This record gives sequence, structure tokens and C-alpha cells, in this order.
Amino acid sequence: MKTEICDQFGIEFPLFAFSHCRDVVAAVTNAGGFGVLGGTAFRPDQLDQELSWIDEQVKGKPYGVDIIVPAKFEGKGENLSFGQLADRIPDDLRGFIDELLATHDIDISDQPRMAPSSLSGDTGKSLLDVALNHPIKLMANALGVPPDYMIEAGKQTGIPVAALVGAKEHAVKQVNAGVDLIVAQGTEAGGHCGEVTTLVLIPEVLEAIAAVPGGRQVPVLAAGGIVTGRQMAASVALGAAGAWTGSVWLTTEEAETAPYTVQKMLAATSRDTVRSAGRTGKPSRQLVSDWTDAWQPHPGGREPLPLPLQNMIAEPVLRRIDKLAEGGHPGAQALATYFVGQGVGLMNKVKPAREVVLEFIEDYLAAAERLGRSLED
Amino acid sequence: MKTEICDQFGIEFPLFAFSHCRDVVAAVTNAGGFGVLGGTAFRPDQLDQELSWIDEQVKGKPYGVDIIVPAKFEGKGENLSFGQLADRIPDDLRGFIDELLATHDIDISDQPRMAPSSLSGDTGKSLLDVALNHPIKLMANALGVPPDYMIEAGKQTGIPVAALVGAKEHAVKQVNAGVDLIVAQGTEAGGHCGEVTTLVLIPEVLEAIAAVPGGRQVPVLAAGGIVTGRQMAASVALGAAGAWTGSVWLTTEEAETAPYTVQKMLAATSRDTVRSAGRTGKPSRQLVSDWTDAWQPHPGGREPLPLPLQNMIAEPVLRRIDKLAEGGHPGAQALATYFVGQGVGLMNKVKPAREVVLEFIEDYLAAAERLGRSLED
Repeated sequence: MKTEICDQFGIEFPLFAFSHCRDVVAAVTNAGGFGVLGGTAFRPDQLDQELSWIDEQVKGKPYGVDIIVPAKFEGKGENLSFGQLADRIPDDLRGFIDELLATHDIDISDQPRMAPSSLSGDTGKSLLDVALNHPIKLMANALGVPPDYMIEAGKQTGIPVAALVGAKEHAVKQVNAGVDLIVAQGTEAGGHCGEVTTLVLIPEVLEAIAAVPGGRQVPVLAAGGIVTGRQMAASVALGAAGAWTGSVWLTTEEAETAPYTVQKMLAATSRDTVRSAGRTGKPSRQLVSDWTDAWQPHPGGREPLPLPLQNMIAEPVLRRIDKLAEGGHPGAQALATYFVGQGVGLMNKVKPAREVVLEFIEDYLAAAERLGRSLED
Repeated sequence: MKTEICDQFGIEFPLFAFSHCRDVVAAVTNAGGFGVLGGTAFRPDQLDQELSWIDEQVKGKPYGVDIIVPAKFEGKGENLSFGQLADRIPDDLRGFIDELLATHDIDISDQPRMAPSSLSGDTGKSLLDVALNHPIKLMANALGVPPDYMIEAGKQTGIPVAALVGAKEHAVKQVNAGVDLIVAQGTEAGGHCGEVTTLVLIPEVLEAIAAVPGGRQVPVLAAGGIVTGRQMAASVALGAAGAWTGSVWLTTEEAETAPYTVQKMLAATSRDTVRSAGRTGKPSRQLVSDWTDAWQPHPGGREPLPLPLQNMIAEPVLRRIDKLAEGGHPGAQALATYFVGQGVGLMNKVKPAREVVLEFIEDYLAAAERLGRSLED
């Protein structure tokens, strides 16, 4: 393919793959797509290691880094320590979680119950500094308008800056903030997402951007529910420049996904996900489980705390649950969950990441041919 | 266009238009699409009149009729009178609605407060009998598996039977029940809908139908959020045979939509709709308003009654609200709502129905060309 965005990013196929797993990033980039490493959960020295490994694998082929820097979070601008943030978590919440675990036959009273959240926004700058010492070709922020230092770094280095949006109003805001690439992500997406579906959001965002007075024509990638080439082709028919994907890589051979969660994903249909704030404090789509059922919007569920407080208490517990689930613990298996989009209903087999890319290309071509054929007399 | 479904239905463009307005049905059919009259709200003698009018307008061109016969509803099989059904509505609900209206400066204590619901399922058979006396080319049920008498009528007359589904499991059930056409409707749709988005649902349904042992390859129309030709093209790229639309006709010149509601729709973005059971008792997508805010899933909202009880109390009040809103009553304007999908964000101008069809065709061609161009070297 020779579209504008392929030229701009030096790729053969405008399939962008977000993953926390360096192997997936390298495999997608080496197969002609564009891998993007989710860097937020790493310490700066770890990120440096991961990126060095990718550099060796891709030998100059393009890849990017995504760093989540939330625009709004509890304690923003207050420069709070972990302890000070922890003090804002109500005492009875610990009891609520203990009870939930107890009914699932789990006792982790000897384990650390809270951990700093990777979504607290305070490591973004140092992670970005690390990333900029590597030949990255894109920097992205998956939650709101990128921080000033990212926009500034983009201007200084010429490296494009991408931002995820779930509503047309946010897209306009991002274009005005100077972003170079918009990822318009529908409600069917795994992880943080809005309420508008991809099929409606893409044309709405394109229309809104085109109407920005004096606005630059920023390319838009479609995201949300896209796990096949036909869905990517549909997105390009809608006017998107390509696709941004995440969930589909979670069941690849290379992925970091907890083994029991992979089994859940393979068995899940599209109706087995829910948009819940029970993991991070902001609505994000994940597998339905007894954990998500314990929090709103599930009827009778408890109201989650804001980001990053909910994440500080949820993440360490969920990590422990993953381990127990892998060991065959039935209560932990009922609680186990992870971010994934509705496309999980179409993810039915573990495959190498490279094979996923090749299947995307084949399926994209077949879909384009199908649409072309509908016009023949 | 010369696709299989065009041949099967004798149309030039596989755009199916559901409307309660006979003018829209005739206009779409005459423009080369396929109009489908929503027949449920009519008395049998009224439906006969509407269809006779359409017959005169379309002069043999194909159209269809949709009759909602819910598979599940309160009082099913009990043969209850209106009074007996009304007795199942808790007393305090009337007070709840009175209070909601009073806070909006509305007093309708002199008005009838309940009316038989057109969704009670008991007029379906007589409406279908009327429809079968007209040269209809499709009969559809927009809520669950079509009743036996519709499937039976399809077999006897050779007229195809269509059913709407919001999940792949339902699609398989419908194919096994003998349905000839599946309308797979995503969560972004106006009216009754499920939770899976169109972009995910279409491939999931196609895959599930293909896997039915010994199953017939039933064509699938895409529905939900489709208000432009580019979205229809995206659906065909996904594998759908065409599009089933509803919302887009609500802001046409011909539509029956209450005038103030049309203004609300033109101003709305895709985020101004909500999936709420507050109108019919089953989750259906509609414009957000003070009415939908009064019912779950809105936080603090009251739990709606099941179908058709909720509809018996909501519909007469909402009709009255429409009239007051048109007269400029601010409280009524805040309460006014109607079924519409997220595509409302792309509906920004009142147009004749014929023009909407022509724009669909033009936009479809442009989208197909865009996708084709992405493959050029």
C-alpha cells in the first residue's frame, strides 16, 4: 500500500499495534506495520532496556512509544507522596475488598495491599526523556490532551505526536493543541474509552476536524473493536487513514497477558466485556468478571474511587488474582479480568503476532475486493 | 448495483429504510431503495389505508412492513385486558411521574394517563393479515424471533421474513427458526438495541451463521448508527449485504417526528443519546432528556417497569410533552425525547427523503473509491 500515512511513517500497511510487550511491537514493525510500546508501566531504566531490545530487533524500521499522562487525576498539582495519596483512600474500602476476596476463598492479608499507580502521571516526563534517546518515530498519549512537554518535544524533534480521543470535541481540542495524529477510539475499545461507537465516531471526528477554522488536516486512525482486516478496511472506507489496535495482540503467542486470562479471552463473546471504572478509576472496557461485578455500573456495585486511587488498590490485588488463577484457584478465576475490547468475540485462537499482521493484510484485501465487486454491473 | 440482494428484492441499491411515515417509505422505494413501514402503532384499518396509499405511490416497486411482536412481555399468554395490565402498575409510579412533571411546570391531571401499548404483542396477527393483502415484498419483526404465524405466512406466500438481532446467539436462533434475512443491529442504533457495536457485531454474526451446521447462508443487513453512504460502504466491506436504517429518516421533510424533537436532533451530537428502558420497558436508544434522566441506568433514576407496562404509562405522557414542547413550554422541551441512534451526531439538516437516498449512493461510491485507492501503488 502507498497511502499518505504509509509514506509519512515509512510503513507498508497502516496497522498500528499498541502493546505492553516488546516482542509484539518488534514483530508488527518487522511485518510492515507500526508497533507502539505502552511505556507507562515501566520504570525509566526498564523502558530503556525494552527500547534497546526493540532497536536491535527492528534494525531501523519505525516504531513508537505510548505514555499515559492523564489530563485529570486526584491530587494533580498537589505534588503528593504515595503515602499522602493513600491517605485519601477510605478505610472501609479495604474491608470491602477483603470481603470480596473472602467470598472467593482468597486471603492476601500478608501481601502488600497498595502500590503506586502507573497512571499517576508523575513518571511521564522521565519516561519520555528515555524514549527520546531511542529512534522512535511516534510518541502518543492514550488519555486526554498530551502534556505540554510532549507537544514541545514533538516540535523540537520533529517526531509526530499522537493522541487518543473518544469524542469529536476532544479531537478538535487536540488538533488545536498541536497534535499530529488523532486516534479516534470507539466505545468498543479495550481500556479507557468513551461512549460513541467507532462506526459513528470516525465520520464525526473527520467532519469536526475538517471544520476547524484554519485547522490542519490531521490524519485520523480508527480504533475500537478492530481485530480483523475487514474492520480495518471498513475504517478506511469511512475515511480513516488506518487502524490503531490493541486487544488483538493480547492473545498472540508473544503477549504478556496472564495465561488464565488468555483462556477467558479465547472463550469470550463480544458481550463478555464491560465499560467499568473498577480497575483504574476511569471508565475502561475489560472482561466481565466477579471483580467488575463488584463495582458500578454493575447494579448494586460500589462506586469506584477516582484515578489513580482506585488503581492503587485494584492493581496489586488483580495481579495476585492472576497468579492464583493460573494455579487453578476457582475463586481467583472468577475474579480474573483484564482490559480488552468487544473484538474479543472474534479472537478465538493464539497466533504469532506476525501471523496476525499477515491475516490482517489478506482480510483487508478481500474486504476491499468485496466492496469493489458490489459496484460491478 | 447488481448484488445478490438487489436481485432478490428487485432494488437498485441495498438501502433499507424503516419508517413509521408512509411518505418516507414511498420516497425511498421510488428512489431505488427499499422502504419498510413500521406498522405496529396503527390500527388494522389505518394500516390498510397507509399501505393502499403506498401502493399507489410506488406502482409495483418493492416495499415491506415491520410489525413488532415482542417474544417476551409482561402478561404473555395470560390474555389480559388493558385494565388487568394497568392493575399491575404500582400506584406510586403515577405519583413519581406527577412529581417529575410538576418540577417541569406541567399539570396533565385532566388527561388520560395510560393508554394501551402498541408493543403489547396482541395486534400483530391482525396487522400482518392486513399487510398480506398488499403486495409487500418483506415482513419483519424488530424484536426477537418472529412469531410462528409470521414464519408460517412467509412459507405459504414466499415473502421473505426478516428479524432484527443484537447478538450472534440470537442470529443463530433466528436462522434456525427459518428467517430469510437477518438485520444485525449494533448498540448505536435508535430504538431497541443490544450492547455490541455494529463494527464488531457484523463480522461476529456472519461468522456465527456460517458455522451453523447445515445452515442456510442467510444474508445479513447491517444496522445501527448508519446515516451515511460511507458507513453503508463500511458495512459491505465487513461482509453485510446492505444497510437497514431508521434514525436518518427522522429528520427528513416527510417524517412524522415532533417538530421540537427534530430541532433537538439537528443540534445533538452522538453523545446526546442513551440506552434506556424508560420509554418502553426494554433498553432502547433515545435522545437524552430530563425524561431519560429520571430512569435507570441514569444514576439515581427509578427502575422502569417491564414491557409493555412502562410503555402504557410513558407513551401518553410523552405525546403530551411533545405537544407542549412544540408550543414553546420550557419544561416540556427539557423532557422531550424520541428514539434515535448515535448517528444523530451526523444528522444536521432537514432534507427530502429522496435526497438522503441520492446522497447515500454518492457517498457510498466515494467510500468504495477511497478504499480501492488505498491499494494502488
